[in-house]
Amino acid sequence: MPTYTAPVKDTRFVLDHVIGMARYANTPGFENATPDLVAAVLEEGGKFAAEVLQPLNQVGDREGCTRHDDGTVTTPTGFPGMYAKFVEGGWGTLTAPTEWGGQGLPWVVGTAISEYMLSANMAFSMIGGLTEGCIASIEHFGSDEQKAMYLPKLVTGEWCGTMNLTEAHAGTDLGMLRTKAEPQADGSYAITGQKIFISGGDQDMSANIVHLVLAKVPGDPDNVKGISLFVVPKFIVQPDGSLGERNKVSVGSIEHKMGLNGSPTCVMNYDGAKGWLVGEQTKGMRGMFIMMNAARLGVGLQGLAQGEVAYQNAVSYAKDRRQGRAIVRAAGVTDVADPIIVHPDVRRMLMDMRAFNEGNRAFALWTALQVDLSRHGATAEEKQAAEDLLALLTPVVKGYITDVGLQVTVTAQQVYGGHGYVKEWGMEQFVRDARIAQIYEGTNGVQAMDLVGRKLPAEGGRAVRLFFERVGQTIADAKADPKQVALAEALEKALGHLQAATMWLVQNAMAKPDNAGAGAVAYMNLMGVVALGWMWLLSAKGAHEVLGNGAEDRPFAEAKLVTARYFAERMLPEAATYRRRIEAGSEALMALSVDQF
Amino acid sequence: MPTYTAPVKDTRFVLDHVIGMARYANTPGFENATPDLVAAVLEEGGKFAAEVLQPLNQVGDREGCTRHDDGTVTTPTGFPGMYAKFVEGGWGTLTAPTEWGGQGLPWVVGTAISEYMLSANMAFSMIGGLTEGCIASIEHFGSDEQKAMYLPKLVTGEWCGTMNLTEAHAGTDLGMLRTKAEPQADGSYAITGQKIFISGGDQDMSANIVHLVLAKVPGDPDNVKGISLFVVPKFIVQPDGSLGERNKVSVGSIEHKMGLNGSPTCVMNYDGAKGWLVGEQTKGMRGMFIMMNAARLGVGLQGLAQGEVAYQNAVSYAKDRRQGRAIVRAAGVTDVADPIIVHPDVRRMLMDMRAFNEGNRAFALWTALQVDLSRHGATAEEKQAAEDLLALLTPVVKGYITDVGLQVTVTAQQVYGGHGYVKEWGMEQFVRDARIAQIYEGTNGVQAMDLVGRKLPAEGGRAVRLFFERVGQTIADAKADPKQVALAEALEKALGHLQAATMWLVQNAMAKPDNAGAGAVAYMNLMGVVALGWMWLLSAKGAHEVLGNGAEDRPFAEAKLVTARYFAERMLPEAATYRRRIEAGSEALMALSVDQF
Repeated sequence: MPTYTAPVKDTRFVLDHVIGMARYANTPGFENATPDLVAAVLEEGGKFAAEVLQPLNQVGDREGCTRHDDGTVTTPTGFPGMYAKFVEGGWGTLTAPTEWGGQGLPWVVGTAISEYMLSANMAFSMIGGLTEGCIASIEHFGSDEQKAMYLPKLVTGEWCGTMNLTEAHAGTDLGMLRTKAEPQADGSYAITGQKIFISGGDQDMSANIVHLVLAKVPGDPDNVKGISLFVVPKFIVQPDGSLGERNKVSVGSIEHKMGLNGSPTCVMNYDGAKGWLVGEQTKGMRGMFIMMNAARLGVGLQGLAQGEVAYQNAVSYAKDRRQGRAIVRAAGVTDVADPIIVHPDVRRMLMDMRAFNEGNRAFALWTALQVDLSRHGATAEEKQAAEDLLALLTPVVKGYITDVGLQVTVTAQQVYGGHGYVKEWGMEQFVRDARIAQIYEGTNGVQAMDLVGRKLPAEGGRAVRLFFERVGQTIADAKADPKQVALAEALEKALGHLQAATMWLVQNAMAKPDNAGAGAVAYMNLMGVVALGWMWLLSAKGAHEVLGNGAEDRPFAEAKLVTARYFAERMLPEAATYRRRIEAGSEALMALSVDQF
Repeated sequence: MPTYTAPVKDTRFVLDHVIGMARYANTPGFENATPDLVAAVLEEGGKFAAEVLQPLNQVGDREGCTRHDDGTVTTPTGFPGMYAKFVEGGWGTLTAPTEWGGQGLPWVVGTAISEYMLSANMAFSMIGGLTEGCIASIEHFGSDEQKAMYLPKLVTGEWCGTMNLTEAHAGTDLGMLRTKAEPQADGSYAITGQKIFISGGDQDMSANIVHLVLAKVPGDPDNVKGISLFVVPKFIVQPDGSLGERNKVSVGSIEHKMGLNGSPTCVMNYDGAKGWLVGEQTKGMRGMFIMMNAARLGVGLQGLAQGEVAYQNAVSYAKDRRQGRAIVRAAGVTDVADPIIVHPDVRRMLMDMRAFNEGNRAFALWTALQVDLSRHGATAEEKQAAEDLLALLTPVVKGYITDVGLQVTVTAQQVYGGHGYVKEWGMEQFVRDARIAQIYEGTNGVQAMDLVGRKLPAEGGRAVRLFFERVGQTIADAKADPKQVALAEALEKALGHLQAATMWLVQNAMAKPDNAGAGAVAYMNLMGVVALGWMWLLSAKGAHEVLGNGAEDRPFAEAKLVTARYFAERMLPEAATYRRRIEAGSEALMALSVDQF
């Protein structure tokens, strides 16, 4: 059975030495996040994930969820009890606004903890995983009454939130959705229609479920500009806060999926359910985007989280499993066979995973810091810069980290040989669970289109220029240090490819938009590998700091330097290939007629 | 539900215009393989696969196999009936020696048909899939009596064969195996021990099962040089050919796996079972290698086969599913949304898959032709050349095609968006089934080590020099043709990287073998991408021939040229990255101590 230990030491290294959290001590929201408090939260969160959530991960996969005839859903054995402990521990309240009962900790701390929870039990974490986004939407666009009615219980986790966008014929293309919202005399709306792929659409863990639903009011435009956002609770909330009648929303069926079996993916039937408008009519996409952007970062984290737990188990297996002999054996070894960790190709797999996981962790936490700075930055400039970088890199965090995440789980499974393919060993579940992260919250192709078509050209390319400037500055600083120069030069080369590819898109995608679509995924990967290279350069700088201090863990810091070099030697060269793919343009790609396929 | 149509047109294009089968009409074994006969066999085989095997592919996945208390196994509903039709149609006899009742057709034709069967139902095909290798081992090393006893019924398919190598503690490292073979007075051996991961270890499809088992005779060396090969039938065969008593071999359990559920993966208990030595005592690995090499080519084909069926369904979905609008719409289109095949990133996915599948098909069939030529080549030189190339490229066919195959199934699943993750749609099964091909018959890492450590240096690098010469000749020829020159130059560059990386290994891996292990997988990928580039250059040449003839299908030939260009622009640039990975050497890769992981 797989095991899990939260990588607290590495998280702290990233916070302290890569993104330098101490610099932001005066930023609102960071005052209480003292190093000691953060250390304690990480320790406790890691323990909770490993001891409470992880032991039921395989159980959830095996049992799955059950839909009953009355349209309710039961989660796997132990899940409701686990959720009660989650609420009791206040784990959902970490970053929630203090005004509504949250702890108001920095987003970056919440992200660190989310990684642990997602590693330990991704399916469980998904069931209530959209509550955070639901809180954000209501906080931004809800009326005062709605805030008072829903936020306190969503913050504690007594209630969970969901996100209802997709319909069978309307996935990426939400303009085609058909769910209707008819105004009622009492100011509410009657919601009728069917939504699919709703995570946690029903469950037996929280007392109420707050659905945020996209629907159209009859008469509004029949496209994306006619969509409004509604709050539709499972149980109607009474003026005194108690739960009243059951709303006319139920689960028509649950999907049988490749993985993530512990999380019920529901077909939701709204049959004249009572809903209330959130924000302005026909401006529903704005509220949904708030939710979606938070969710995209969370999904990116899932790629890292599955990669991390898979890696940890692959390391244990590689230390334990004995096959073959080392090329050069240590003196005095007489065993018939050595642990497979001695073999270079097994090392390659472990180093690949390590380089991606640690790089992804730094990247995810750096991005989370931008969330904090975009809200609470010291100056308007700092806020704007963080908002720009966040907008630019959100699709990269989602798309690149989840693509790499699948790759890491596949590699970890490969370390196990035949045992990796057998369910009992648990490695194949990580692959199946990780796979969904490339698909939901907008497929990775959609992320890439968002990056290239929307984020890149926004404000005349302001965000991407800032990104180049920041990465360039780190390179320039590092080149002044003989110990960092090799790494800096490798990143400089990769950044050069990204800049050239960006220029190529600017020059070639305006007149011929197919060129943007044709190169979008390659561009996302190119920006991903440069972002990770940047994180590794910052990590190397951090490791030199640690070694300079002399006080901290030398082998840990030395491993960082080795892994940074490995990433530079093995992964950064991919940048050239991505650039060539982009510059190939769309000609061959679009040349075949539909009939030729 | 997924569908499947055998790609007969493409197979024929490869046979006629890429590998030029007509040139070998005088080669023994090819006399009867007239173009008309081959066309008929492909048509019929394709129909059989699509109509008989494919409809039960999802059923097999859903139901899986059942082990009974008496150690026997039942396959999924319909599988025994399907197998009866397979035997009746003579599909197992295609390439089997005429001497034992086979049709003696070229291996390359058998390979084409195997692809179809594996696309239609990989699990079914695996159950009896090792029979071919079993026949080859007995044919090479068995006594006349053994040949007469086993071959005729293995050839018809009345009996199936299996391959018993792995034990729980001895996978890649067979030297550690513990299964014992004790000589008996009657000349037989009593086989005792446990084998794991035995595909088709028991089933209810064939009247008998012929197990080939690796075991050690007490007193022989306790390493890989002490291993002998034994034939152990499920039912003892009587002198008159009838089946006698049940042998003491039974299935202890079957594995619950990630996929390939229709094929029982068995733990085999040999409890003093009666077995007979095949070939010389302690020379068992020779017989097993014959079987293993055939099996490796077959597994490579599985990567192609799953990629092909996944691609076909992704194409249908992309033509059918409507989301969003084309950037430029055809005149007069008024639909709300266009089929997603109009979007460049969907095209990218389809073109990626197409370029890999068609390239892999040409590569697999070219390699199969080397099997024929190594046996029946006109001269000793031709035989030796084919044998050298076959030995060199077998690990590449197995490793590269299965790695690419998984990637293609993942891409095809991605085209379906959320529906790709739902079991009902069938796309996720292709991913789960394809995954095993990277693991069994020697993990892809083991293939890469075989390539770099054994195949490359053999006979002073004779095989790889021949490969360079052949690819170089195609490039030189193509450069003389203005229509082919761009493609030829792209391949020339990639070949240059492969040659440089080979030289680097020659110079750096002798003194420091870790450098070979560290670069092995990158080298396998590098050789794979060059091999596919070569196939695409040959395909482009073939397409020009077809267009020159004027008679054949123009859109088909034009699609070949477009796809060849796409491969050159998008995939060949990877060669540079692989080379850099190899030349990075093993320093960073091996630098961490075990405790640092």
